[in-house]
Parts: sequence; C-alpha cells; structure tokens
Amino acid sequence: MVEKHRDTLGQALDAIRSRAYWSPHPEHPKAYGADGSLGADEGRAAFDALLGGRFELPGQPGTDGWTATESSPYGLPLGVEYPHPDTDVLLPAMREAVPGWRAAGPEARAAVCVEILARISARTHEFAHAVMHTSGQAFMMAFQAGGPHAQDRGLEAVAYAYAEQVRVPASADWSKPQGKRDPLHLSKEFTAVGRGVALLIGCNTFPTWNGYPGLFASLATGNPVLVKPHPRAVLPLALTVRVAREVLTESGFDPNLVALAAEREGEGLAKELAVRPEVRIIDYTGSTEFGDWLETNARQAQVYTEKAGVNTVVVDSTDDYRGMLANLAFSLSLYSGQMCTTPQNLLIPRDGITTDDGPKSYDEVVADLAGAVGGLLGDDARANGLLGAIVNPQVGERVDAAGSLGEVALPSRSVAHPDFPGATVRTPVIVKLEAAKPEAEAVYLSECFGPVSFAVAVGSTREAVALLRRTVREKGAMTVGAYTTSPDVERLVEEVCLDECAQLSLNLTGGVYVNQTAAFSDFHGSGGNPAANAALVDGAFVANRFRTVEVRRPA
Amino acid sequence: MVEKHRDTLGQALDAIRSRAYWSPHPEHPKAYGADGSLGADEGRAAFDALLGGRFELPGQPGTDGWTATESSPYGLPLGVEYPHPDTDVLLPAMREAVPGWRAAGPEARAAVCVEILARISARTHEFAHAVMHTSGQAFMMAFQAGGPHAQDRGLEAVAYAYAEQVRVPASADWSKPQGKRDPLHLSKEFTAVGRGVALLIGCNTFPTWNGYPGLFASLATGNPVLVKPHPRAVLPLALTVRVAREVLTESGFDPNLVALAAEREGEGLAKELAVRPEVRIIDYTGSTEFGDWLETNARQAQVYTEKAGVNTVVVDSTDDYRGMLANLAFSLSLYSGQMCTTPQNLLIPRDGITTDDGPKSYDEVVADLAGAVGGLLGDDARANGLLGAIVNPQVGERVDAAGSLGEVALPSRSVAHPDFPGATVRTPVIVKLEAAKPEAEAVYLSECFGPVSFAVAVGSTREAVALLRRTVREKGAMTVGAYTTSPDVERLVEEVCLDECAQLSLNLTGGVYVNQTAAFSDFHGSGGNPAANAALVDGAFVANRFRTVEVRRPA
Repeated sequence: MVEKHRDTLGQALDAIRSRAYWSPHPEHPKAYGADGSLGADEGRAAFDALLGGRFELPGQPGTDGWTATESSPYGLPLGVEYPHPDTDVLLPAMREAVPGWRAAGPEARAAVCVEILARISARTHEFAHAVMHTSGQAFMMAFQAGGPHAQDRGLEAVAYAYAEQVRVPASADWSKPQGKRDPLHLSKEFTAVGRGVALLIGCNTFPTWNGYPGLFASLATGNPVLVKPHPRAVLPLALTVRVAREVLTESGFDPNLVALAAEREGEGLAKELAVRPEVRIIDYTGSTEFGDWLETNARQAQVYTEKAGVNTVVVDSTDDYRGMLANLAFSLSLYSGQMCTTPQNLLIPRDGITTDDGPKSYDEVVADLAGAVGGLLGDDARANGLLGAIVNPQVGERVDAAGSLGEVALPSRSVAHPDFPGATVRTPVIVKLEAAKPEAEAVYLSECFGPVSFAVAVGSTREAVALLRRTVREKGAMTVGAYTTSPDVERLVEEVCLDECAQLSLNLTGGVYVNQTAAFSDFHGSGGNPAANAALVDGAFVANRFRTVEVRRPA
Repeated sequence: MVEKHRDTLGQALDAIRSRAYWSPHPEHPKAYGADGSLGADEGRAAFDALLGGRFELPGQPGTDGWTATESSPYGLPLGVEYPHPDTDVLLPAMREAVPGWRAAGPEARAAVCVEILARISARTHEFAHAVMHTSGQAFMMAFQAGGPHAQDRGLEAVAYAYAEQVRVPASADWSKPQGKRDPLHLSKEFTAVGRGVALLIGCNTFPTWNGYPGLFASLATGNPVLVKPHPRAVLPLALTVRVAREVLTESGFDPNLVALAAEREGEGLAKELAVRPEVRIIDYTGSTEFGDWLETNARQAQVYTEKAGVNTVVVDSTDDYRGMLANLAFSLSLYSGQMCTTPQNLLIPRDGITTDDGPKSYDEVVADLAGAVGGLLGDDARANGLLGAIVNPQVGERVDAAGSLGEVALPSRSVAHPDFPGATVRTPVIVKLEAAKPEAEAVYLSECFGPVSFAVAVGSTREAVALLRRTVREKGAMTVGAYTTSPDVERLVEEVCLDECAQLSLNLTGGVYVNQTAAFSDFHGSGGNPAANAALVDGAFVANRFRTVEVRRPA
C-alpha cells in the first residue's frame, strides 16, 4: 500500500511546498463511474439503499442502542439509525489500538490514510447525496465541496502530518569528538507518538470538508479518532468511518482506530466526550459559544476550533465594475451564504466609488449589486442549483428578520424546488446600514449566519479600513476581500490583514470567489484572529498532534 | 548579514535533519580569546566591571526606577541595578517594532538571530561568570551549559523557526485548468506573521540554556520578546538583551524587539505580564504550581511550560557494573542534582540484580553507588568543580531534611569552597525507601529538587516498570534511564516510554549522562507528559509562534 500511494503522497508533498494548483480528485461528476468508482446512478442507488435502515459498523465495540437524528433540509426522510456508543467500552478499545498503529510509522500510516481517501473518492457520488441531504447544499456543490474538495483537504492534512513526522529521522548515529580521547558514540531512535484519542466534532454545513483535515491529521500522526458528527449531519461521516474501518482492517490494523459516536437527540455528547481524560485532541467547527467552552474546559486536550467571524469586503474602486458585481453576487448567493467564508459586511464609501464605468454612488453600487444578485438568481432552476436549501429554521428566521435591521436593498425571495417541495430555498437579502449609527454597529458587528449581507456606508475608504481592522480584531474573520485600483489602499488593507492575521482576496472579478479556498495552495482561516485558532492546513495544525520519543543507547 | 550566516544556518538545518553531532560553539574555555572573542581574563574583567553598577539598556523606553535583586549563591555581592519597566510604555513600543521585523522575512530574521548568538558566543567567558554567580553552577559547567550549549539550543530554535516558516513559499502562481475555458490564474503571497509580544519567564538555575530556545524561536518567527528574568538570575539574560538590542540597532531594526523586564523584590511581575492582552506567547521554566497557573490563566497566549517531574532510573541488570555506578554517581552529583533532568528515583529489585561482577543484592547496589559517589566527590577541589553551590536555602533545607525520609545510604556532606567561603556546597544524599510502603510512596512520588535521590526497593523489575509508568503518567519526567541486559526488559521499558511519552537513555556507562542532552540531536523533554507541555526543540515548539497570512489576486 505504501508503494501504491507513494506517488500521490509525493505529489501532495510537492503541492504544499509549491502551493501551485494540484488535485488528484476530479471535480466533474462524469469523471466517476470507471475504474471501480461509482457512477451517478450507482452512487444514487447506494445512497438510497442506506435510507430508513440501520447503519452497521461491524466490530465497533460498545453499542448502547441506536439513534436517528437527521432530517434532510430538502424534506427527504432519511431515517438512518446509527449505533449509540457506550464510551466506557469504546474509548478503552480505541486506546488499545494505538501500539500497532504507532509501530507502523509515518509512511505506512500515510499510505493507509491515502487509501481511505481513495475509497471515499470512488464513492463520491454516494457521498454527494449524503452531504446534500444533511447540509442542504445543492447537488453540484455537495458533490464538489463534499467530495473532491474535502478529500483534497484530507490529503493535504496527511501530507502535512507525514512531512512533520519525518523531519526527525527514524534513527541517528551520534559521535562527539573528545579531543585526544575516543569520541562519544550513541545510537538514537526517534518515534512519533500520538497524544491520545482525537475527538472530531462535526458540523452541519460541511461535515466532510471541515471534518477531514482534523480526522486525517490526527490519524496520520498516530492517534485514534472518535468521530462525533453533528446530529443533523451524521451520514457523510458515518460513511467515512465505515470506509476507514474497512481499510484499517484490510491493512492489518485495529479498526477501532476510527470509530463513530452518534448522539441521541439533545444528548450533548460532545460536551461529555470533550472532557474525558482519554481525549487529548479535539477538532471543532461551529459556534463561538461552544468553541470557547471547549477551549476553556477541555484543558486536557489540544483544541482546534473554527468559530464564527464577521467577514468583510472593502469596496474602494475597481477597473471591472461588472466583474466585481458578478463576483460578489455569486459569493453572496452560493449555498445561500451559509458558509463561514461568505462576506457579510460590504464597506462602501458614502460618497461612492470610481469604476471603469464611471463614478458610482453608494446607492448605485448597492442597487447594482442587488441587480446582479437578482439577475444571477432570476431563473429558478439556476437559483436552486446555486442556493441549495436553508440548513435549519434559525437561518430562515434570520432571513425573515433582516428586514427590520435597516433599509432593504434586496429582499429575499423564496424559490420553489421542483424535486423537493419540502425544501426552504431563499435568495440573499441585502440591508443598507450606516457605519456610524450605534444601533447599526451592533447589527453589522455580529455574525448573522446565512443569506444576510450588509451594505455598510462608511465616510471614506480610510474609515472602511479602520472598521475592517476593528472587525477582524474584535470579531474575527475567515475571509477579507477588497476591491481597489489604488496601490495605497491596497497597501493599507494588506497591512490590516497582516497586523490582524486575516486571509485577503484582492480584486476578484472572475471565477475565483472570496469564500472558496483550494487545498494545497490556500489557507482556510489563519488561526490568528478570533474566528479560528487554527488554519487549514499548516504546520501548526499537525505539529502538536504527536510527540517525538527518543531512545538512546551506547552505539 | 544573511550572506555571513548562511553557512551556519545551513549546517544547523542539516543537523536538525540528520540529528548527528554538530555545534559551532566550542566547549573548551581555551578556544576563546582570538578572532574578537573574549579570553578568560577579559571575560572575567568584563564581568567584574558590571558588578555594583547600573546596567544600562540604551533606548529601552519606559524605565520606572531601578531594581537589584540578585545575590550570588557563592556569596559574591553582585549589586547590579537594572531598569524596572513601566509596561504601559514598554509593551506598546514593542508592538510598534513589529511591522519592519515582519517585512524583513524569515531569512533576514534568522541571520540577525545568528549574529546575536555569535556576539554572545564571543563573550562566553563573561556570560560564564554571570551564569555561575546567579545559578550557583561551578565555573566549568556555567561556561559550557550557560555558554556553548545554551547558544546551541538557541541556534537550534532559529533553525527550526526558519525551516517552519519557509515550508510555505513567499509567493506562488496558481493556475487551475477549466476544461475548454481559460484556466483560472491567481498570484499569491504568503507572509509569516508573529502572534504578538512573547514573554520569556526565566529560571534561576539555567537562565540562558532554558531561556534561549523560547527567546530565539519567538524572535525568529517575527515576535518581539520581553525577557522577564528570575529575580536571582537577571544578569545573564540582561546581557543577552543588551547584545540583541545592539545587533538589532546595527541591522536597522527597532531594538525594542527585545526588551528586559527586571522585577522588584516580591513584585510578581510575571503574573501581571502573563495576562496582558499584548502578550500572546509565554515561555516558562519553573515550578509546576506557577506553570499550571500560567496554562490556566494566560488564555490569550500560547504557553510553553517546563515544570517539575520525577525522573526515574530502572536498574535491572548490567554488563558493566562499575561503568553504571560511575555514570549514575556523576549524574547524581552534577550541579548538586539541581537539574530538571537529574534522576531522583533509582528503582532496584529487592532481590538484587545480575552484573558482570556477579549478582548484587539491593543493599550492595545501594552501598556501591554510595561508594561511587563518595569516591567521585572525595577530593574537595573535584567536588567543588562538579557540585557547584546550592542555589537557594530551600534546596539546602531539603537536603537537611532528607535524613528523616528513610534510611540514609549516603549522607550529604558540606564542602568548603576555597574561593567563596559564603557558598553552600553539598554532596548528594541517597535515601533507601520501600516502594510498597504508603508513607514512602508519598515521598518518592513527589519531586524533591536538589541533591536528594531515593534508592527505591521494588519487588521485581516488572514492578519497577509498572512504577515507572505510573510515575511518568502521574508526575511527569524529563528523563528516564534504564540499565538492563535483557531484551525483554528493554522492550518493556521502551513501551512505557512510548506510551507515556518520556525520553529514554539506556545503559549509559561512559561519558554521556542521562541528565544531559545535545542540541540538534537530543530532545529535552517530550511535551507529552506532565513535566512539560513542549520539547526543546521540535516543530511543535515553533509552529504556533506565527501564522501565515495569504494575499491573493488575479494574476
């Protein structure tokens, strides 16, 4: 297996060094169906076969009844039952799996991880439906973001984990000169040792994309991984766990290195697991409230969190007005703004901006953006394909309430879904706010997760830059965007992003969007502002998941 | 400067990869005195010139009076006064120094750090006296551990920091194919960005050796470093700060990137600084109590701690009985056991061990070890050269109280120092304890810092291994040693050390000692057991000191 995947691992290692474009996972659905991978119909059939049944995890110890908590945002009954864990049985079994996995070494562990990802990749069509019907993403997005892009992020984590471990050689001969006396000779062995059980706390909106980096980083560095999915998005991670256990078993390792902990409705299992002494690593994506709770209370563990932030775009000037509007319209619409990377606050000078289409007032910019969003989503089929479904009622309520926050520049409309009448599909709402008004400030300085954006009128670009700084420093940001033709403004925005540690996209007008990042090249978050304490994926994301133990003896 | 130090940095990078022996810093005092370095007499004169005076730090802002808190364990009056900081002035000034340092990039920062170390190296004789008269180390140890070995650890940290930052290129061209459409092109820039002010909280016993890794790791990754020395060991770090500020100024950087925060007697400045919002990194060596306090309370910072542990040696069997005894005797005696790496508990089977000199009973092993220590330290001059002075009265009190803990196999004796009549010099005490006795357990499972060791009688080697596991898991350990000729026992001890994350030295009988580690090759601590949450030096020690900020734009 090491031989089989050496080339893929090598290419991944090259990619994280060069950060040029690379992916071994095709984005197009038609690329699947040959070479043992499931085609569209097979994937759909595999997904359908899971519905309404028990999701067996052969050999996973400590099953304490069954639980079913999912409901598709598209209204499709899922009815899948998962084993509920007796953690007093499961956690010790996971710890027992460690020595063999540790002894395998970094390369074998990486190869097993790559094989798990390859098997998942072959079932991307099946996973796509599972992601669609848990997250509410439209099919194509569920396919790409939940499939190849998530697998890319997982592979990136494997590459980083491997590279980090082999920075120290497996052994060394050490010989220190002693002048006229004989040199001192020691023989040294170095072993990467995992920290203990890693707990992955999954999220509802991107169960695989946000889950794979932590899962594979922990597994590849020698830790067993307990996967606690969001109760509304269990299936994509349950499938992942089952594939991982199959590959581990076939490779001669203990399958309990990866296990599922599906919770009962309202159980709060994450809170209980997070403070177990066996749990030494936690990866979490979700609310700031629970992320802060984990950081404060799970002191026995290394905690990696991605929480809420307030993403900002500074609009100063552009030499491609239509491109800017189209790009922003797409970013606001994709998955109905239910991405941690979607822009929320568009800071626009009250006196307007300069563009290749002449000067545009604040009102014109906002109206033109509203028009661009309206045009993009004017066709219901296209709108459904881009928006997907609202993931939970709270997001829907926020959309409904947005009108009371300020003047509505673009109202949200409901879109009927031809296949899923139960789906709630909503277009984005854009609300105009005055930066300086205290009541507005309270609104735009809070995360309003979902398809709600604020066109914030500021006194000047300088004010926009100052507000950007304050927003990132106080509230955090996963993304920052800016449009400007001025080198001075560019420099000012860059300085803020360097000072406050935020990832910046400048003048995006084409087919790359501020809310999308590419594995092996872009960092997702920085780990340096309040939105997240870790980036996907860098050395810091993997280096603390293991320790190096040295054994030295006379040579 | 980059050119000047490229070779040294390259060799350091090679060394951390191969972990073979390497050092650019000579260990022998006679190696100094040419090429601009201070010789023995010059170093002594430079040290003498500092005594009883004000230690000026030209340009350091926010001086709020002067403070003198040192007293040499050798009884030499130091009387050096240091500026006491007004941190409300100093911390903002340090933050202002950041942008230029960040813009310099990893290579220039590394070169400046290497230059600082080179200047310190040239003054090793001066530093040796400063370390000797603050830590109480004997001159030769202060020279080596406080000089070249500390400088090695600093350089190792610079190499790790540099390597970690340049894993991501400064820029990348990203081009993603789009089938028949034009590819998407982006140009990306990546900048390593420090987290904020780094606080180094120095220790009394190894101000430079334990201080340099954190200091240089933080500085090399773009952070200003505020050095808060132990009030009894200010001078070595004050000299370090002054050299750093000189080099920074000469290199065109803001000298406030490195500043000194000397405290007043009983002020508790570390506690105050540790929770300042500007402080984002803390390095600490010292008591478990304060280390735990930092980890619990300095939540705004990344905290690296080296705390107390209980170091154990398992004595099962040996094919070099005399070598084992001599090696252990040296380890117990060096710096009167005042090292965080000194063995405390020697676990010896009650029924004795097999050796090349025939079977030895527990009593014989303990008596022979006592004899070896006695022989090693029988000559007062040699004893003074090895033991150094007791660093503080608490250590002396522990030595005096040791006799009440159990049967004394080797009493401690006081040694007169010919040059420093005020020095308290004590030989190690060895106390016999029964592992199984509850009152003994409470004794040997607590750290008894200083020249006190316990010869713990265990029922069998298996029991010793079990006790080793429990000790490391519950109390932590910086070092573990074992003597055995049995491959099975060796495997058992190795398994414990891998499971519990402790660094193991096997069958040391020559000139390498369990309490010594070599930079670039050995890890000091593992970061995986309660004795320390970080190792010196690995990727995890540097990776979280900075973040990578990306700026991307259409190419």
